[in-house]
Amino acid sequence: MKRLKLKWVSFGIALALVAGMAASGICQDQVREIIRIPDILGYKALKCDFHIHTVFSDGNVWPTVRPVEAWLNGLDALSITDHIEYLPHKDDLKIDFNRSFEIAQSSADGLRLTLIRGAEITRDMPPGHINAIFTTDNNALDTKEWRDAVKAAYDQGAFLFWNHPGWTGQQPDGIAKWYDEHTELVEKGWIQGIEVVNSVEYYPEVHQWCLDKKLTMFGNSDVHDPILMDYNPARGAHRPMTIVFAKDNSASAIKEALLDRRTVVYFQNWLIGEERFLDPIFAQSVEQDRTQLTLRGKGRSTIQLSNHAGLDFELALDGEVPDLSLPESLVIPAGKAVMLTVRSTTETVNETRTVELPYRVTNLKVRPNEGLPVRFKAEITFVAKKS
Amino acid sequence: MKRLKLKWVSFGIALALVAGMAASGICQDQVREIIRIPDILGYKALKCDFHIHTVFSDGNVWPTVRPVEAWLNGLDALSITDHIEYLPHKDDLKIDFNRSFEIAQSSADGLRLTLIRGAEITRDMPPGHINAIFTTDNNALDTKEWRDAVKAAYDQGAFLFWNHPGWTGQQPDGIAKWYDEHTELVEKGWIQGIEVVNSVEYYPEVHQWCLDKKLTMFGNSDVHDPILMDYNPARGAHRPMTIVFAKDNSASAIKEALLDRRTVVYFQNWLIGEERFLDPIFAQSVEQDRTQLTLRGKGRSTIQLSNHAGLDFELALDGEVPDLSLPESLVIPAGKAVMLTVRSTTETVNETRTVELPYRVTNLKVRPNEGLPVRFKAEITFVAKKS
Amino acid sequence: MKRLKLKWVSFGIALALVAGMAASGICQDQVREIIRIPDILGYKALKCDFHIHTVFSDGNVWPTVRPVEAWLNGLDALSITDHIEYLPHKDDLKIDFNRSFEIAQSSADGLRLTLIRGAEITRDMPPGHINAIFTTDNNALDTKEWRDAVKAAYDQGAFLFWNHPGWTGQQPDGIAKWYDEHTELVEKGWIQGIEVVNSVEYYPEVHQWCLDKKLTMFGNSDVHDPILMDYNPARGAHRPMTIVFAKDNSASAIKEALLDRRTVVYFQNWLIGEERFLDPIFAQSVEQDRTQLTLRGKGRSTIQLSNHAGLDFELALDGEVPDLSLPESLVIPAGKAVMLTVRSTTETVNETRTVELPYRVTNLKVRPNEGLPVRFKAEITFVAKKS
Amino acid sequence: MKRLKLKWVSFGIALALVAGMAASGICQDQVREIIRIPDILGYKALKCDFHIHTVFSDGNVWPTVRPVEAWLNGLDALSITDHIEYLPHKDDLKIDFNRSFEIAQSSADGLRLTLIRGAEITRDMPPGHINAIFTTDNNALDTKEWRDAVKAAYDQGAFLFWNHPGWTGQQPDGIAKWYDEHTELVEKGWIQGIEVVNSVEYYPEVHQWCLDKKLTMFGNSDVHDPILMDYNPARGAHRPMTIVFAKDNSASAIKEALLDRRTVVYFQNWLIGEERFLDPIFAQSVEQDRTQLTLRGKGRSTIQLSNHAGLDFELALDGEVPDLSLPESLVIPAGKAVMLTVRSTTETVNETRTVELPYRVTNLKVRPNEGLPVRFKAEITFVAKKS
Repeated sequence: MKRLKLKWVSFGIALALVAGMAASGICQDQVREIIRIPDILGYKALKCDFHIHTVFSDGNVWPTVRPVEAWLNGLDALSITDHIEYLPHKDDLKIDFNRSFEIAQSSADGLRLTLIRGAEITRDMPPGHINAIFTTDNNALDTKEWRDAVKAAYDQGAFLFWNHPGWTGQQPDGIAKWYDEHTELVEKGWIQGIEVVNSVEYYPEVHQWCLDKKLTMFGNSDVHDPILMDYNPARGAHRPMTIVFAKDNSASAIKEALLDRRTVVYFQNWLIGEERFLDPIFAQSVEQDRTQLTLRGKGRSTIQLSNHAGLDFELALDGEVPDLSLPESLVIPAGKAVMLTVRSTTETVNETRTVELPYRVTNLKVRPNEGLPVRFKAEITFVAKKS
Repeated sequence: MKRLKLKWVSFGIALALVAGMAASGICQDQVREIIRIPDILGYKALKCDFHIHTVFSDGNVWPTVRPVEAWLNGLDALSITDHIEYLPHKDDLKIDFNRSFEIAQSSADGLRLTLIRGAEITRDMPPGHINAIFTTDNNALDTKEWRDAVKAAYDQGAFLFWNHPGWTGQQPDGIAKWYDEHTELVEKGWIQGIEVVNSVEYYPEVHQWCLDKKLTMFGNSDVHDPILMDYNPARGAHRPMTIVFAKDNSASAIKEALLDRRTVVYFQNWLIGEERFLDPIFAQSVEQDRTQLTLRGKGRSTIQLSNHAGLDFELALDGEVPDLSLPESLVIPAGKAVMLTVRSTTETVNETRTVELPYRVTNLKVRPNEGLPVRFKAEITFVAKKS
Repeated sequence: MKRLKLKWVSFGIALALVAGMAASGICQDQVREIIRIPDILGYKALKCDFHIHTVFSDGNVWPTVRPVEAWLNGLDALSITDHIEYLPHKDDLKIDFNRSFEIAQSSADGLRLTLIRGAEITRDMPPGHINAIFTTDNNALDTKEWRDAVKAAYDQGAFLFWNHPGWTGQQPDGIAKWYDEHTELVEKGWIQGIEVVNSVEYYPEVHQWCLDKKLTMFGNSDVHDPILMDYNPARGAHRPMTIVFAKDNSASAIKEALLDRRTVVYFQNWLIGEERFLDPIFAQSVEQDRTQLTLRGKGRSTIQLSNHAGLDFELALDGEVPDLSLPESLVIPAGKAVMLTVRSTTETVNETRTVELPYRVTNLKVRPNEGLPVRFKAEITFVAKKS
Repeated sequence: MKRLKLKWVSFGIALALVAGMAASGICQDQVREIIRIPDILGYKALKCDFHIHTVFSDGNVWPTVRPVEAWLNGLDALSITDHIEYLPHKDDLKIDFNRSFEIAQSSADGLRLTLIRGAEITRDMPPGHINAIFTTDNNALDTKEWRDAVKAAYDQGAFLFWNHPGWTGQQPDGIAKWYDEHTELVEKGWIQGIEVVNSVEYYPEVHQWCLDKKLTMFGNSDVHDPILMDYNPARGAHRPMTIVFAKDNSASAIKEALLDRRTVVYFQNWLIGEERFLDPIFAQSVEQDRTQLTLRGKGRSTIQLSNHAGLDFELALDGEVPDLSLPESLVIPAGKAVMLTVRSTTETVNETRTVELPYRVTNLKVRPNEGLPVRFKAEITFVAKKS
């Protein structure tokens, strides 16, 4: 009779805490996803979630669960950011704002995950909710005035970002608004990023703000329940995450990358970020099988496109090429290949031309409503129909 | 921008508790499994889990999560049974042994689930761990002597059963042992059932004890972590459960059924229970398309078997029929149909015979290592080969 | 070493043909889908595909494959309808327009599928392509004039219907057009139905014609390749089919039903048909767990809706109920349950009211762009907030 | 109204044949699997199936279907090998043994697949069935004596291999037998390989013969029906295939590789082949996250193993390491990562040791019943418990 994995995990964690040992909390039969988004520009593509709750504010799981979930989901780093000001379990639970971090730490260490101390400063709009990560003592953030809380985090060396600016709980129409307080926060350097994506929401106006004001883009889960209740990998779903391009997965390298705005948001089937990151991601993911084609009369030929990444790429035609008919749209599924069919619309040309087949990757968002432009190079030999 | 389901759930529960309202904690896009095991003998086939933990002992989720998970999993009733004697979170959490039940109750009510108050009396072997359900005050179970705890529960009108008798934490070789203390408990009527299945473990020796001693069979999850971390329905897995055949899903009807031993254990792809239950379950699940077949010479013909239940049935040949060749084994997958191919081994017979095709359903366990016998009736016309 | 199923099938069929026996061509481990659409109005809901090709015209499989595929797909009846006028394989294959039916027949018989003789009269538009089913000799359809072919089929007692009127091969803009020839065909009784759906195409204008002109609606696969290449059940896809409401699955009962227009088209996640059929299908598929609700103040409560059918139902709100807020949309997935959340928008009412919660099932199409109206009855008790 | 893919394929192929153009027969929305088995030793790992039937012998699909299926399945090369001596469709089909190759060729060309001309010499045992590939004229193989057929193929420069030696159609007990005729065939160089795997069968005795006699190992589908009817990738199944390690995917490079025995058989979740190939496949697929571990007292630590290949690796412990407890077995699923947990069994050692953790990859078969040995290197620091 093999002992059940379930009890093993929980008892393992419990005993490990008692004994002061590092505990991974992972059973031999638990499996970690590998998120296939390539490393680029000499950096590691770290998968991170910087907005997570536990029972120590209004979340519904014990802190040790969060690193285990992060490991299962293929993350490299996470930050537990319980509310300072919203504590619905406080009748049952003794409150210490560092406690969820402390409890989770040995679990994260055993899994080689970078656990970053953090907290959510939870105020009315403006300025709304603000996450402070890389803090050193969350209890110092429990102040009456929100500026004091933000300043306390900033003085600890924290990186702060504004959460879910379009949350209907604070903006009933779901549209983010920029207040003077946010100008103040940015000018003082107190916030350096914003969530473009929170949970199941994307805020296009925030996306544009980040581009215009040079703020770091974040996409986080803001998970309260067990993560699998919200995003089931077996059904192809993943939590929103912030891809951080960093030298390594140390806390300091991640902080340096955030300060340098080296992030891309991975949200459902989208990647949201600057072209300087999305362009090499596509280039390293998609392989074109050949560049030389012959088209006889009004015949057709194909280019095979293989996608070695873990997300689909959705292409839309982005221009015209003389004498060619190209598909209006094309999906290259994750880990699969498809044929791009090229047709000649002429029967009278005898010539070899170097062309670029113009597409936009509509799910790689370089701006709101604007996909990454890509060009497939091809040398096409037209052979006229014999008359 | 639609508001995210995640936050909705948690805030919803929180606000509901504050406001004293019934809260379901279910979002519009959350989906409940329907477990297709038929009602039989005039009873409802209730899907139940009577062994569940929360952060209030060594579990890792807040109590409100458990009814939501139960609803998602298609359960009708559940019991949260936190340990009395094992409290690894007690430095952070104020202990009250009724608290997990109280916190979960409005969540269960909103989902029309029957939540049964319970606790796990957690002692060394013998007598090991004992679940008391249908208690009225769990705090009375916090006694020095185990007999006092058991008696306190019994005096409250509880139904008690022995948990995971073969757990390697208490029986290193994984084999359950019966001690004098268990004889005492049964004779006093203090325990009336045993877990034949706990989590990923099945105890054949306990299965036999239940048959011999007329004790109620249980199969429970003993879940500590978020349930989806252990059993992912999207991967076809379900938690072990106790199917209770009851008049309705009230607590009193469930208790009456437990006292009458009207249970079957649903474990992975097995149903474990008495023939009086497994036989009508199979009969109501599987449909035979015809009973009259003609076999010409050494030819073959088929009977189509359709399975309207939600679990596969695995059949093994259980005897011989003169002049017929039948498949050694056959799987009828859940919600699908297959052909049972019947072949003649004679070319010389001209006759119509009524036969029974003898099989055992190997995953419906009427006893350890013994599948339910089933007989498919057929009227077979043998047509001799023309010579 | 168990013998491979693959060879078994093919050799089995081959040997069976040689020996003149009925062959099912199904291995013990092949599995038939059960399509869960309920029987209604005292009729069987037969799953049928009346438009199928083989190598005997421009299809790519041997005729015996079609009944096997139909059985795997859960069909009850099928018609192989090879082209009379389009024969790209004729250099390799001897042409006899009855041959594909004859070859497939024993395979269909062994699987208890109703195989209906048929052919596709394949002409320029007008009148386009016309399927004749229930023919007795397809060779008589090989005529110079299309009217002669249609009449020959009609004189054999065939049921004829117009295929894919909006096919871009004949209507470049994809919009079906009604010609005088079609008026003639209908007036003479030579055609009595039309394909509202063909393969991946739905023709809304044809849908309306069927309602206006009282013609039988068809949805067929028009499959040429192996069916699994086009519709993979393991990916949740099914071929388009015509659901026929018939007394039994005999050819005569099917013909009677077609003449009486007792069909519904099952296309992707849609059912297309008259309200007299779609209404009882929904009513027998969806179960409402209760009708009595209490709403306290601006509180909410829920009704659980369980879907016992094999397709999702997609609901959209279709009106308002005073003092209630209802979800705009709701999906009840196949074989699952969800909660319909009802909220009060008043805090001042103390009253019990019987209401109907108004929805449209948008994927049950009673007319182009019009979903089936459904009303969930509920007795709602409003309890005013105490002031 | 978008035109249906189904008709597009078939009509596309048909029209292309008429026009003499290369046709791919692939629609824009058809998707090719990428089989993730790494290139090794400077060679491409080509995925090949050298045993395939069509309607031109006893298969059930038109020849153009086979390259399309091969492309969908991720193959690089295929050979259609219709029987010379078994022609059940010959009453309907004109027989020319080169015809299936000729018909399929433009389909294969359009998909950049290497189509190799071949045929199956189909005789009683001995010598049984023999595939000849790289033939130039299959009609020359239609001889009375089997030696004449084999010699005709050999004289054409064909590569010949013995098919399914343990097929119960010729060996009722399923065990392959070696006859004098096979000695003769090998000594003359007339056969140079054998199928170790055919369809769903693996022949361990043949596996050993290949090792002992230095014959090339093959694993082929021998498909007769549409391939998706037998192996559904959406259900995780793939056809058996021969992985050929070749300079490129030209016919000549493949032939050179076969003559040099550079093959591995990919069968269900097994790779069968020589250690010289399986060892680098494992080494390039599996990544170990670290080599330095610290174990405190009887504590544990972990090594993360990530599997970048497309098949699971199943590991079994293959020895002992002093003072360490290692898991008996471990599965590293395709495209996922798991933790190998290492436990100390001593509390009294203070020392750093370089060890090898000994495992066998049981599903990489270097010999019948013998998995590939692998050793994970680790530098382990034992820290004694403080007393």
